[in-house]
Amino acid sequence: MRTALTELLGIENPLVGFNRSPGVVAAVTNAGGIGVLAATGYTPEELDAQLTWIEEQVDGRPYGVDVLVPARTATGDPADYLASLRAQIPQEHYDFVDSLLAKYDIPLADTASAGDRFAASVGPEIVQPLLDVAFSHRVALVANALGTPPPAMLERGKADGVPIVALVGSPKHAQRQLDMGVDLLVAQGTEAGGHTGTIATMVLVPEVVDLAGDVPVLAAGGIATGRQMAASLALGAAGVWCGSVWLSSHEDITSPAVKAKFLAATSGDTLRSPTRTGKPARQLRSAWHEEWANPGSPSPLPMPLQPMLVDEAWRRINQAAEAGNDGAKALASFFIGQVVGTFRELRPAADITREIIEDCNKALTRLANLT
Amino acid sequence: MRTALTELLGIENPLVGFNRSPGVVAAVTNAGGIGVLAATGYTPEELDAQLTWIEEQVDGRPYGVDVLVPARTATGDPADYLASLRAQIPQEHYDFVDSLLAKYDIPLADTASAGDRFAASVGPEIVQPLLDVAFSHRVALVANALGTPPPAMLERGKADGVPIVALVGSPKHAQRQLDMGVDLLVAQGTEAGGHTGTIATMVLVPEVVDLAGDVPVLAAGGIATGRQMAASLALGAAGVWCGSVWLSSHEDITSPAVKAKFLAATSGDTLRSPTRTGKPARQLRSAWHEEWANPGSPSPLPMPLQPMLVDEAWRRINQAAEAGNDGAKALASFFIGQVVGTFRELRPAADITREIIEDCNKALTRLANLT
Repeated sequence: MRTALTELLGIENPLVGFNRSPGVVAAVTNAGGIGVLAATGYTPEELDAQLTWIEEQVDGRPYGVDVLVPARTATGDPADYLASLRAQIPQEHYDFVDSLLAKYDIPLADTASAGDRFAASVGPEIVQPLLDVAFSHRVALVANALGTPPPAMLERGKADGVPIVALVGSPKHAQRQLDMGVDLLVAQGTEAGGHTGTIATMVLVPEVVDLAGDVPVLAAGGIATGRQMAASLALGAAGVWCGSVWLSSHEDITSPAVKAKFLAATSGDTLRSPTRTGKPARQLRSAWHEEWANPGSPSPLPMPLQPMLVDEAWRRINQAAEAGNDGAKALASFFIGQVVGTFRELRPAADITREIIEDCNKALTRLANLT
Repeated sequence: MRTALTELLGIENPLVGFNRSPGVVAAVTNAGGIGVLAATGYTPEELDAQLTWIEEQVDGRPYGVDVLVPARTATGDPADYLASLRAQIPQEHYDFVDSLLAKYDIPLADTASAGDRFAASVGPEIVQPLLDVAFSHRVALVANALGTPPPAMLERGKADGVPIVALVGSPKHAQRQLDMGVDLLVAQGTEAGGHTGTIATMVLVPEVVDLAGDVPVLAAGGIATGRQMAASLALGAAGVWCGSVWLSSHEDITSPAVKAKFLAATSGDTLRSPTRTGKPARQLRSAWHEEWANPGSPSPLPMPLQPMLVDEAWRRINQAAEAGNDGAKALASFFIGQVVGTFRELRPAADITREIIEDCNKALTRLANLT
């Protein structure tokens, strides 16, 4: 298949596999797409090790990396930054999370120190080292999942000939990214897992394509099969950016207890909720969301306060769910799009990649015979 | 273009134009698609006149009709039925609507008697006469926008060789309709105008196609251009069911004040709200929705109580908006999907129809050249 994306990146098929597991990234790249590592939460040393491992697997084939980079970073002493964030989390919120874990028979979290760990992992002092690691590797693209990339990131991409990719959920955000000079846009519809807006892929993609001119646009949200990939190409996308589908792969590192819930879920079992990251993010509906929606429950805090508050709680919930704790299984959830309803079994990521590409080709052949 | 829909209905292109204006219905049919009249709110005599007028325009070409038919109808004295509904609307709600109109300088509505009129228009005593009128005409399909059709409707369709069509927003509802024996399914995604579920078209359509077997499935929601039509065919749909796009046509009878707001709106300016019909329906976001969301505002009532409550208020809002009342313009709204963001000007419905079909063919040609 030839599109603006395959030309730009030198890949066989315009299929991006976005996942936090290096095993998925390598498998997608080796099966004819391009894997992109979601590198949030790594130290620079960890990221370096992961990218080195991926390169050992892919034999020179292209892969990419996604780093969570705020457009403006705080300056000054990291300890002051942490203390100022911590001071913004009300005691009521700590108490609510503690009582929620207790209600579901889950060992209490040491929430405060875990919050520090989370804040540090996305804090200002780690961004430049992470970007340095990413650009020191042979990456075919660098994506930024958080707003507009800082100018330094765009300049580095231009200097190194590495396309900078931005995810957008509205035409307004797309225009802002185009004005900044990004090289590739991912137009992500509301049906996607993780942070999303309200506009559906079917509507958003052609709007962004029309704005973007010569800048290639990938479709994201609701794409887990070849038919959906063909539909995205019909909308004018130069390719697809798939995230959720890899959570049905063996290589994905999501907790087995959560993956079991995914296999049982229908397409109606997700919701957009700010209770995990402080921004609306699509995830599997669970008892967690019912608890936050109860009258008397506190309102979720903005990012990064909400993930500081709940990060360690989620670690405990996942551990307890894997150990068979029924309360934890009821709470268990993760970011996932509406395509979760199509998950039937866990499969190798390479098989998923090949099936999407084959089915896309079949759909294109079927369409050619309609006229 | 040849699909299961064009074969079933004997039409040139698999494009359904769904609208409450007979002028739109005739224009779509004459331009190579098939128009379907949304017949809600008509008396049997009015419906008969509208269908007769359409037939005079279309020179034997096929068209359809959509009637709002509840699966179970109340029996007994219509006056008792009305009185029992009226008794379920709290005085607090009447007072809220009155105060809302007063706040925006709109003449007060005689809400109670208008509610009776609305209830009567969808009440049990009118359903059978409406269906009799529909089947007495040369209709190519009869659709039911409200849940599963009653068995008598399906039997009449079978006897007359008229396909019965049902709209669904989830795989579960699709299965229920298939079990009832409907002839055509419309899988309508959350981005659609009017009553919708939460699942996006990109995800819902392939799910329903896989359930439906030999029953053709049309895609609805987010489809206003040829690219979106081609994408729907890629998803496995046998055609598309377009509703919102006709609200950008000259022939559509929506208030000019509302159509002016549509032309200025973006794809992010809609919301799903139960404040108009009692069920979640996508519509243009306006001051109306802010007022209902205010703390202290009453909760919307279930269908048909909410439309009984607000039907006359909406008539007054539209009249006042057309007369230039600024408060009414702020409140003005109507059912519309996320495609409203693509409206640039009002055009003849025939031009819209032809452009969708031409652009769909162009998209199919473009796709054929990708491989």
